[in-house]
Parts: sequence; structure tokens; C-alpha cells
Amino acid sequence: MAESPVINESPLKIIPLGGLNEIGKNMTVIQYEDDIFVIDSGLAFPEEELLGIDVVIPDITYLKKNLSKIRGIVITHGHEDHIGALPYVLKEINVPVYGTRLTLGLVENKLKEHKLNDIKLVTIVPGQIIKLGVFEVEPIRVCHSIADAVAYAIKTPYGKIVHTGDFKIDFTPIDGQKMDLSRFARLGDEGVLALLADSTNVVREGYTMSESTVGETFEDIFKHAEARIIVASFASNIHRLQQIINAAYLNNRRVAFSGRSMVNVSNVAMELGYLKLPEDIIVDVKDIDRYPENEIVVITTGSQGEPMSALARMANSEHRSMEIVPGDLVILSSSPIPGNEKSVSKIINQLTKKGAKMIYESLADVHVSGHAKQEELKLMHALVRPKYFLPVHGEYVHLDRHKRLAQEMGMNSNNIFILSNGGVLEFTSKTAKIGKSVPAGRVFIDGLGVGDVGNIVLRDRKHLSEDGLIIIVVALSSTTGELVNGPDLISRGFVYVRESEILMDGARKVVDAEINKCLNKNIKDWATLKSSVRDALSQYIYQNTKRSPMILPIFMEV
Amino acid sequence: MAESPVINESPLKIIPLGGLNEIGKNMTVIQYEDDIFVIDSGLAFPEEELLGIDVVIPDITYLKKNLSKIRGIVITHGHEDHIGALPYVLKEINVPVYGTRLTLGLVENKLKEHKLNDIKLVTIVPGQIIKLGVFEVEPIRVCHSIADAVAYAIKTPYGKIVHTGDFKIDFTPIDGQKMDLSRFARLGDEGVLALLADSTNVVREGYTMSESTVGETFEDIFKHAEARIIVASFASNIHRLQQIINAAYLNNRRVAFSGRSMVNVSNVAMELGYLKLPEDIIVDVKDIDRYPENEIVVITTGSQGEPMSALARMANSEHRSMEIVPGDLVILSSSPIPGNEKSVSKIINQLTKKGAKMIYESLADVHVSGHAKQEELKLMHALVRPKYFLPVHGEYVHLDRHKRLAQEMGMNSNNIFILSNGGVLEFTSKTAKIGKSVPAGRVFIDGLGVGDVGNIVLRDRKHLSEDGLIIIVVALSSTTGELVNGPDLISRGFVYVRESEILMDGARKVVDAEINKCLNKNIKDWATLKSSVRDALSQYIYQNTKRSPMILPIFMEV
Repeated sequence: MAESPVINESPLKIIPLGGLNEIGKNMTVIQYEDDIFVIDSGLAFPEEELLGIDVVIPDITYLKKNLSKIRGIVITHGHEDHIGALPYVLKEINVPVYGTRLTLGLVENKLKEHKLNDIKLVTIVPGQIIKLGVFEVEPIRVCHSIADAVAYAIKTPYGKIVHTGDFKIDFTPIDGQKMDLSRFARLGDEGVLALLADSTNVVREGYTMSESTVGETFEDIFKHAEARIIVASFASNIHRLQQIINAAYLNNRRVAFSGRSMVNVSNVAMELGYLKLPEDIIVDVKDIDRYPENEIVVITTGSQGEPMSALARMANSEHRSMEIVPGDLVILSSSPIPGNEKSVSKIINQLTKKGAKMIYESLADVHVSGHAKQEELKLMHALVRPKYFLPVHGEYVHLDRHKRLAQEMGMNSNNIFILSNGGVLEFTSKTAKIGKSVPAGRVFIDGLGVGDVGNIVLRDRKHLSEDGLIIIVVALSSTTGELVNGPDLISRGFVYVRESEILMDGARKVVDAEINKCLNKNIKDWATLKSSVRDALSQYIYQNTKRSPMILPIFMEV
Repeated sequence: MAESPVINESPLKIIPLGGLNEIGKNMTVIQYEDDIFVIDSGLAFPEEELLGIDVVIPDITYLKKNLSKIRGIVITHGHEDHIGALPYVLKEINVPVYGTRLTLGLVENKLKEHKLNDIKLVTIVPGQIIKLGVFEVEPIRVCHSIADAVAYAIKTPYGKIVHTGDFKIDFTPIDGQKMDLSRFARLGDEGVLALLADSTNVVREGYTMSESTVGETFEDIFKHAEARIIVASFASNIHRLQQIINAAYLNNRRVAFSGRSMVNVSNVAMELGYLKLPEDIIVDVKDIDRYPENEIVVITTGSQGEPMSALARMANSEHRSMEIVPGDLVILSSSPIPGNEKSVSKIINQLTKKGAKMIYESLADVHVSGHAKQEELKLMHALVRPKYFLPVHGEYVHLDRHKRLAQEMGMNSNNIFILSNGGVLEFTSKTAKIGKSVPAGRVFIDGLGVGDVGNIVLRDRKHLSEDGLIIIVVALSSTTGELVNGPDLISRGFVYVRESEILMDGARKVVDAEINKCLNKNIKDWATLKSSVRDALSQYIYQNTKRSPMILPIFMEV
């Protein structure tokens, strides 16, 4: 039944704003008239083709244009893809940041590194109401692969919005902080205008296992291990760390942390009481050799095969304090993030060659996902029963699958919206429709540069990476226009010149002939000269090598 | 019981010689005194970090040094990683190539492309004995994801060697050509000195399903499809193509091929009778619009998400004859090769966005592997019962697992050898030991260049790809040594210069100041000048951007 819009009602807007290939993963914007607030400010790690790029953050042009309207940023949890862009965003938009205690502990650390000292951080607890302009925002406890994660229920002029954030349903979480299912159920009873829900694992059937199942596996493995144990995991998975520590304690082993982020995060978690440690269990990784091998567990970064991580350094004999030796038991308590499969299998090979015994996800239950699978998502839909549904946190294929899941549960496809980043869904009291998009996109961070590397620079990097470059250096007389010096050819990343003398001699002759041909024709316009020379050399090189290096003619007038 | 070697016995050598990260995958060498023969001459596709490299072939220095001893090359099957290096190898070593009919059909095609017309190709059939010097080589029928695959049993002075090649055990193969299990059993009865066996799937439990199970899935899917069907698969998987064609025929659909290798391989297979076609079933892909949508199946390349493949072009509206439209059913009849996961998920996203319905491995049984899993490998070991075992065709972790599998079946670990490429296993009548390695490695092909891109060039490409370059151009007077022209800075792949004027102006000033400082100090040696300027600019750039572009000072004397 089509309902007609009430004339002149201001729209309530939901705008997914950040994500590399995913929609609304790193940032979501909610707006009504002059009130805006932001959910999460995360970063993404670049794909291989973004050559030289360190991280990718959302384009916040829209927020900068509406600076005075922004009431705050609320954070769902402390993962990089939800907090990592905060330093960049807060430099442009100094607004209060709301989050749970652990989340803000991690945020604070990050802001310190960026020397941002004037940001107002507001610690919140589930159930509390945050007033952000016209909005009333309520955090709700959820489970995830980091402690202290929350979803948000948002009271708006046209009804309630529920944003799940990243979540899984864990009935036996490590910290006893169960997901507040009854609050989601009550919200459903009260009526929910729109649900935004995590789609990461929507293509997977069944349920994600409880984090506590991993602890049982650890206890079992540790009980039978006879030498050192090295466990690689995400530093932020504090429950995982807790379970490793518990298993170590039960088996009379001490624990050392290795890797910068492991040390940083475990410190924050210990200070704030999220990581509970038996006395004297922690030793410095420098001191582990003082203990028998069967009394040590090292918890390290590097579970994704990152080449500079502590685990990779151990595997390559580049770690300051330790090295993998035959007999070591290495556990990868993780699953390769898509795109990292090769680097993970590389480190498994390296460690196996060093004589380590390897245990990883496909061999034992040493990892569980932090995201809800199909049955958990269905439960969320069944509890919240929204009028409208926006699948978020996933690539297009995931959102499409999540849409089908909602349809299978009885939702009308007209009430489900798959947006792009920058897409705007507008609600009035009676209607929902796609509005005019706002600027959105990916801003590349390379070193200190924010956004100074764009498509042209990346295209050049790609060209240089594939075939290298040849520089043609020529000096022409300012009086006669004649060739005074050169042509000299300099190449990088093209061929090993010492073994390609014939090719390079030929190239020089081609350039020389072309310049003289042009000069004899009385062509003295440099642009024409350069492009003739570039074309001639390019053709010669392609004919002889089937390659197209970048060719840079440098002409100098003397 | 240790046996003592017979003095002065010439060793029989097994040398795995080719593979990117795998051992003995692309090439294996067998030698006794002055007789050498080669098993397979394949190529590997480079990993991302081999920037600009097209393919990788084995280093055949050892073969070139022993040219007169080489009696021939025997091929196990027609996949690129077993025949792809033949054109390069045969240019250096013109020896007869032995293979089954389909294998040589594909080889012939490849040699034609490389204009190699003087190679002797010898068609063989399973059971036939090939005399290669002192060796008697016998092909044995095996099943794999390409038709006409064989293993080899090799009679040597010290006993028989069995090399499985790539294989799986398929009791219901599409062409009825069952693996010759009884020959492997008889070889076991007769006594086998050494087994070399495929380790690709050794980490997977159970059995690989029969290729024919995929046909059943196709028939079922095709029966219920209402619009066009597009199936992406490897061109060389002729049994797969046959099953797609069969399912099309049963459902009154015509078949079009798209993609260069799909057209090439299907032509060879049709000519040689390996692909059996109902009359008039094939249509040109240009003509498919003449038929109703539910009467068409397109078989295409691109199942690995290759960006230039026919499927990718369909997804990007760049295909000459067709485009994906809503309702199209696209089946990826494949599994992502490690490293290709991202590109496969990218094409799934693109096609889903275009409105295609996608079916791929994780959703339905539209693919099976061509390699034996654990239970099949155990069967092979149980039949052949070798004295010595060399796991091959896998990365280190696979070979290590295969070693354990053999040990679990009762083999003594002293009789199992994990070699590297170039490693040599030497047998005498009583002993087996690791001998002195031979040169081995990876030769990079970039365009027409074979081996002219080495580590220095790759390092430069990597540097250029990450931070780009800055060229400093300076002209100095040949008489006074003074600065005549410049410094000019030219950058590529570094920053978008128009938006970084302040940075680049500063850079120019730094260079200018440094040159003048040097000249004032009367430093006129160009090497010193260049390195001072490079260092000064490098430091300035790093301080301001935390990046390290390649810096090339070009000084010209005028």
C-alpha cells in the first residue's frame, strides 16, 4: 500500500560514508535538519593495487561542509576499521567522541600518537542515553572479537533506528557480558523504523561458535605441548589473549608479549582491568630464555603473515629477542583476511621449514569469527522486526545476500535498501526513498600525506612498477638549437643495463637519429621534439622487448 | 640396518628443478651417467611482488651445461605449469618431446605461437615403453582435471622410479579412461625404488569427488534456469567443458565459447576428438542474440577473476559481443587459486551488481579438484610401496605433511627426502643420499625478455611503485663549474604536483642551497655533489611526507 508523503516534512537521512569495498563499514552518518552525528570513524587497509598507500580513510567532504551541525561521533568498538580514521577526522572536526571504556582507552592511545590532546572523550555504558541534538542515542551491549562492543538504538523524529555495529551472538562470552538480546526484543516490540546490520558473515550458514570454545582447544593443546608455545593473534582480541593466558596459567607457563600493537593493547587492557592476570605470570620477551622451554608461552602479532610483524621477524631470524627453533609449537589463532591468504601460507611455510609444529584454523578450533552467521542474523531480524532494512558492513554480494535473507524472513523487497557509500536514504513519517547522494570516496594516506596521492599518481606508480622508466637527457644550444650534449639514457626498473648493452646502444641511436631528423626538418618546438623522441624510443623498445616503460625526455637549453 | 655403498658406482640422480614456491612442480630431471631426461617443462604465474613479470620459468643452467646428454622431455599432461616453459626450453635444448595425443596437441599449438617448427614430437600411449638412453620410461594412465594425463614408471639401473605427475583417483571419469590402478599395484609387487608423488591436496582429508558429480549439478541447475547461462571454467578442463555441453544439449541449449584460450583449447580438443559435440550445438558468441535467452549457454574464461578475461569484459561492458544483464545465471565452475581470492570476489561483486545470479563453489557442487586428497594418496602409497619417497608438487608445508602421511603409513623417515629445487637425490644400488645441488631458480619472463629482469630491476620497480621518483636536473658550466641551469625537479608517482606546490618549491630550494653549499666549498666531484644533493632532498622529503621516493640527480656539463 503506497503512502503519500506529508508535504514539507524534513527528511531523516542515513548515509553510509566509509568503506574500501564495503558499504558503511568505516563510517555512517545520521542527519535530521541541523543535527548530524557520526557512527564510527575507521580506516581500511589498502588492496595490492593501491601501490604505496598505507591506509584508506573515508572522504569527509560532506561532514566538513556541515561542520556546525555535527553533534558528536559515537563508536561501536575499538577495532581499527571503526576508530582508525579518528585522528584524521578529528583534525578537521573537533567534536566529542562517545564510546565504552575500553574503546576510549584504545582511542586515547591513538590520539596521543597523533598529538591530539584537546578532544573531548565521553565514556558511556550500555543503557545510558546520549543526547545528540534531536537524537537520543542508546548503546546496547553486543559480543564481538573485541571486548566492550556496542550496537546503537537511535530515537529520531520518525522512529527508532537500530545499528548493530559488528556483532556475533555469544551465549558464553569470556567476560560474562552477554549480548542484550532482550533490549533488541523490546525495541522490536516498541517498533523500529530501520535496521542497519552487519553483513560480514551473511554468506555463511549456521552459527558462529562461542569464543569460549577456543579456550577449550587451547587448554587441550597446551596440556600436551612439550616445548615453547607461540600464539599469534590480533592484539585487540582481548578475550582471546585472556584465554591464552588462562591456558598458560593452568599449565604452569609464563606469558610474554611480542609485537608493538600486542604490547600497547595488552597494556591498555591490563590498566583498565579488561585483561585479568595471575600474579607474576608476565615476563619480558627478552627474558624468556631464563625459563625452561615448556614453561613459556609467547603471544605475538603476525597472524596475518604481515612481513614486518614479530612472528615474521621470528621466522626470518630478525627478532631481537627470540627465534623459532625446531620443536616450537606455533599456533595461528586467526583466519586469513581475504587478500592475505598468500602471506599467511608463506609464513606457515617459513615456520615449518624452521622446524616449528604449526597449528592453524584448518587443523584445529583455534579461532572463531567475531561476526554473526546466517542463523544469528535471522535472530536479530526476528527480534528487531524493522519496517525498513539497510544491509551494511559488507561488499555488494554480501549486502545482496543479506537482502535475500531478510526477504526469506518475509520482508518486502521494497522496504530493503542497498546503498553505496555516499548514498542517502531519506525517511519522512510515512515514506523512505533514496535521496541525492553526497560526496564520498576513499582518501589515501601515504606517509604524512592525506589525499595527496590520487589516481594520476597511482597510475604512474603502476606504470613504473610494471615496466620501469627510461630518462632521455639532451642539451640543446640556446643559440643554434643544435644538440650540444647527449642524448644520454638512464633507466630504472627496466632491464639490467649491463646485460642489455646492445638494446640500450640501439635505443641511444634511435633517439639520436630522431633528434637529428627533427632538427634537420627545422622542428625546434620542444613539445613536438619531445613527443617525437618519446614515440620513436617507445616503438623501438616495444618492438624489441614487448614492454612499455615510462619514457621521460628531459631537454635542457644551454 | 645400514648398508655400505658399493665403491665407484655411478649415482642415479633425481633433481626437482622447477617451481615458484613449490618443489619439482614445473620440471624434474632424471640422470644416470651420460643419460638425462626431463619430466615436464612448465611455467608458473608470478606473485604480486614480482612486479611486471608475466611468467616464471625454471632456470635450466644445469641442462644447458649437459646439453649432449639430454635424451628427451616427457610430459605428464597439458597444463601450463607442465608444458608452458617448453618454447623457452626447446629454444636452448632441441630434444624430442614425448606426450599423449591431447598433450602434444596443446604443445603443438604453443610451439606454433612461438614459431618453433623443428621440434620432434612423439605421441605415446599408456603402456608403451620409451627408451631414453639407459632409461625405459612407461606412461601410466591417471585421472586429472585435463584429459589424457599420465604418470611415469622409469626403469633405471638401480630399480624403478614412479612419478605420479598431477593426479586424482576418479572411478567414474568422463571419458571412461580410468586410472590404471592395477599397473601401480604390479609395480609395487615388482618393487619400486622411489616414488615421487603429487602433494597439492595433502592437507585435505578424505577423497576428491569424481568429475562426474559436477555434471549432475550442471544438469540440475540447467533444468531450472530460465535465462542465459554463462559458465566460467578453465579452458583446459575438457571433461568439464564436455559436461557443460552435455547439460546444455539435454536442456535444448546451444553453446558458445568466449575467450581466446577457451576457443583455442576447445578447437584442439574437438579436432582430436576429445570433445564430443552433438551436431549444430555450437554457435558463435557474436550470434547468441539470435536465439532465445533460455536456449543459450556461454562457456567462458575468467573463472579466476582475471581482469582481461572474457568474463571480466562481460562484467565491465567491454566484451565485443555480449554483456551481463539482469537475470543472467553466471556459474564459476572453479576454485580460486591461492592469491586470486580477491580478484574472484571482485568479479562476483561486479556481476551481482549487474543483476546476475551467481553460483560458485561455496554455494553448489560446481567444481571438484584435480588433485588427490589424503585417502587417495594413501592408496597410491599402499599400491606402490616404494623403498624411498620424495614428496613433490607442493610448498614446503605440503611436502612436510606428505612426509608425515607416509610415516603414518609405516615408512621410515630416513627413507623420505624433502628436496629443494636444484637439490639432488643420489641413489646407488644400496644407498640414497643428498648430493651436491645444481643451479636452480626462477627465471622471469617480461615481454620478450627472458631473465633480463633480475633482483635489482625488481627492487627498483618496488621502490618506484611505493613512493615514485623525483628527478633533479642541473646543468653545470664545464669551464667554471658553476650552476648554469636548474635545479629543476620532475616527479612521477610521488605527489600530485599541482596540489603540492609548497612542498615542491621547498624541495627546489633545498636542492639549490645544497648545490651552492657544495660549490662554495669547492666540491666539484660529481659523485660527491650528486650524493650530497640526493641526501639533502631525501631528508627534506622524508621529514615533510614520511616518504622515500627514488631520487635521480641528473647533472649535465655544458
